[in-house]
Amino acid sequence: MNGADSLCTTLLDNGVDVCFANPGTSEMHFVAALDRQPRMRCVLGVFEGVVTGAADGYARMTGKPAATLLHTGPGLANGLANLHNARRARSPIVNVVGDHASYHLALDAPLTSDIDSLARPMSHWVRRTASPDTVARDTADAIGAARHGHVATLILPADSAWGDAKPRERKATAPAAHPGLPAPAEITRAAKALRNGLKTTLMLGFGALTEAGLASAGRIAQATGARLLAATSNPRMARGVGRVPIERLPYPVDAAIAKLSEVEQLILVGPSDPVGFFAYPGKPGRLAPEDCDVMALATADHALEDTLHALAEALGLRADAPTGATTALQVPPMPGAGRLTVQTANAVVARLLPDNAIVVDESVTSGASFFPLAQGAAPHDHLQLTGGAIGLGLPMATGAAVAAPERRVVSLQADGSGLYTVQALWTQARERLNVVTVVYANHAYNILRGEMAQVGGGEPGENARRLLMLDEPRVDWVSVARGFGVQAERADTVERFADILAAALAGNGPFLIEADIAA
Amino acid sequence: MNGADSLCTTLLDNGVDVCFANPGTSEMHFVAALDRQPRMRCVLGVFEGVVTGAADGYARMTGKPAATLLHTGPGLANGLANLHNARRARSPIVNVVGDHASYHLALDAPLTSDIDSLARPMSHWVRRTASPDTVARDTADAIGAARHGHVATLILPADSAWGDAKPRERKATAPAAHPGLPAPAEITRAAKALRNGLKTTLMLGFGALTEAGLASAGRIAQATGARLLAATSNPRMARGVGRVPIERLPYPVDAAIAKLSEVEQLILVGPSDPVGFFAYPGKPGRLAPEDCDVMALATADHALEDTLHALAEALGLRADAPTGATTALQVPPMPGAGRLTVQTANAVVARLLPDNAIVVDESVTSGASFFPLAQGAAPHDHLQLTGGAIGLGLPMATGAAVAAPERRVVSLQADGSGLYTVQALWTQARERLNVVTVVYANHAYNILRGEMAQVGGGEPGENARRLLMLDEPRVDWVSVARGFGVQAERADTVERFADILAAALAGNGPFLIEADIAA
Repeated sequence: MNGADSLCTTLLDNGVDVCFANPGTSEMHFVAALDRQPRMRCVLGVFEGVVTGAADGYARMTGKPAATLLHTGPGLANGLANLHNARRARSPIVNVVGDHASYHLALDAPLTSDIDSLARPMSHWVRRTASPDTVARDTADAIGAARHGHVATLILPADSAWGDAKPRERKATAPAAHPGLPAPAEITRAAKALRNGLKTTLMLGFGALTEAGLASAGRIAQATGARLLAATSNPRMARGVGRVPIERLPYPVDAAIAKLSEVEQLILVGPSDPVGFFAYPGKPGRLAPEDCDVMALATADHALEDTLHALAEALGLRADAPTGATTALQVPPMPGAGRLTVQTANAVVARLLPDNAIVVDESVTSGASFFPLAQGAAPHDHLQLTGGAIGLGLPMATGAAVAAPERRVVSLQADGSGLYTVQALWTQARERLNVVTVVYANHAYNILRGEMAQVGGGEPGENARRLLMLDEPRVDWVSVARGFGVQAERADTVERFADILAAALAGNGPFLIEADIAA
Repeated sequence: MNGADSLCTTLLDNGVDVCFANPGTSEMHFVAALDRQPRMRCVLGVFEGVVTGAADGYARMTGKPAATLLHTGPGLANGLANLHNARRARSPIVNVVGDHASYHLALDAPLTSDIDSLARPMSHWVRRTASPDTVARDTADAIGAARHGHVATLILPADSAWGDAKPRERKATAPAAHPGLPAPAEITRAAKALRNGLKTTLMLGFGALTEAGLASAGRIAQATGARLLAATSNPRMARGVGRVPIERLPYPVDAAIAKLSEVEQLILVGPSDPVGFFAYPGKPGRLAPEDCDVMALATADHALEDTLHALAEALGLRADAPTGATTALQVPPMPGAGRLTVQTANAVVARLLPDNAIVVDESVTSGASFFPLAQGAAPHDHLQLTGGAIGLGLPMATGAAVAAPERRVVSLQADGSGLYTVQALWTQARERLNVVTVVYANHAYNILRGEMAQVGGGEPGENARRLLMLDEPRVDWVSVARGFGVQAERADTVERFADILAAALAGNGPFLIEADIAA
């Protein structure tokens, strides 16, 4: 066997059996090794941002890493924006980047670049394998690192791939079976704080936002009067009927500050002390009031579901104490006929959401009204853009569908953001994935129009219009999607949107609906 | 004025009047400043690889930098692959990357990343501006750096953009009016070497491949028997009737070695000692024979056109000595009717090439037969992928068309490579650019199929097929292009291809032809 075989075998031996890939010449021995391993599912992306975003979606739905295969520095660079999102989501990924043969680097051939420097900002773990015989150990270490919710980048020089390797079995470090709880004294302290009479908000992060985690949090809230709050963006939340409702911290900085303005005590179970997504002149970066007590009970490295369970027990709450979970479907009425708007489109989606759907939400400004409506909809998982690097939605939906073929993926996509990685549609067609994409076509960087109004005031002039508007020409999403092999239709009325969405959800394979929404 | 105004003013005062942009929230003050400067032409790309690739194409055609506007680390990351190509082409670019306000970085908001680490591998020059008052100086320095053929990355924290700046005029360092020649003794030594009877190849790089540079080189070759050779990939070459023909070093390593095998003396005017694009087991990295004398007469930093002129003078050649330039159009006959192939498609393009066209060539395997045919075609500039990071073609064609609106751009595009930055078509439609794109639709990563055959031998199995073939589903380029607002047609016969191409070249605005080529 060669180093590439050793890599594939080690991946498979440790349960990593999906590889999202966009290979090049320096990875041909890796491709040949994959070809000898039919157990590995290889999923091609025709742009690297699709590859890394799909690996993120896969990780969020399975909790385990997929491998990627990227081609040298520029290939990695194209995948970095979605690795940034994955890093912020703590998604496990074994990110394999091929490089020139080690002895070739000194010649500075055209594709040579400093891959290590490129990898570090978006990876928790970076290693360059030194020889074919170290590939197994390095791969196992990368898997072990990924299992802690890390992006682990393994750089594979071509000569480490093609050189002979001694066969060896390598077990990756197992993730701690029970990642730690906070110290008991901390839990006791938090329980006491919840009874101290201050206006308290319990802020939950990824890992706490499961059905069980929310149930524990709900019992605590019902018993103590604490409010529950999630971060603005979360990798995955259990939502819909039967789950405990939870608000999110608003994105606009003024609304976020207002939301926290009356909080006297903030108990953090996962997230950091909340900060503004961006800075604005004269506005604070930290969002909680200056005099608010902030207690970091648990960080993202803790077992958050168990932490909430322990906290409920410390408060003496019984397992059958009321949680505040919704108990009956509360879908909005089907909106009246007429011109489609973002509000009516979101109401239709919430109403028609299939049971146990995966909602991938990169709707940016358009999806605002979906989130509250969806709490009364069928149970579902809600996945968001975590790192602010737009262009995750279509790839993440792709990876989520690979991870959970028995579930329906509903991908809510802003049009401006969707353009960054539109090539994901091809992979959805290639793999015949059950993804229904709704593109909210407002033909503008609408969020930036809002930000621009804050900055400059007045009407945007010619140059601002040229930088913020996408209406000249309007992208014909139906034509683009069909070009990539995905069925597609446009809807500009409520009735047509509802009909098409119902049909798409009943069918097989990917479908895209351009929601032509009135401004 | 604020820092952003200071940036815009300094750019304009130094002749930088085009800004390729994909802005985000942290750049809103920059957008507002651009809005106050109607002299600045703002060109939106809906993906950052379009922005940086267009800036490269613009630089190659004008010799001067455009500015870019990218949004934080992920936005820069999306633009890095084409900055890599620009760096290899020595294209001047003032690459402006917005970042959070400096005091906001410590809060580690979701979009925070180490922009400096990301920028360095693909930039010659990186600076983070420290305050509104240093913006003018930093911008002038960036322009000065860019003028030396550098990618100059200026990181602009939001508070440096929005803070008050004292108005000040800043002149960028002018590029040396006459970048240096090699020392006279070196030129004399090279002239002597050209008369020493060894089998000599004169290898020319960017700057030497102009009409005048090639004429000097042609005189030298005619007089001394030296052969002329260009690198495999060149930023820009003057070609067609009236220009001196020059071969390129072949891309496949065996062919490249064979091409150089009988060379006894290699005189380099611009390029480095030639090396393989990739390493292969058991094959050398350096391509020239071990015992070949290599003389580095001039590097890319020298004035190469002048160097060749001085070398011709040192050889005592008169200005009217024969150059070997082609003197009459030698367009191939119009191929017979029937199924379109790469060969017939290339013959049609060469035959119909408009006078003074700009040929942007990312045809990869499909364009091989175009290059020799085009020598007898109408005079044109030929622009290539220089750094091996595919996905440059459509953006570079976009930037070249912005730079030279009076010329026709013919963009020869492999289908696999074209998918990386397909969003460039939208900018072509937005700006109504005269770009005719020919997509060679072979529905495969054909170059990798060749590399795979070298590596593994035998028929590719299921996984290799899934990673190298793009035929399931086939991308419908006509539908994709129309979706982005670009007129498009498909051709699968010679007649239809010729008709459509002729009509497209006679029309206005962008047009895409999917050349459905027989395998």
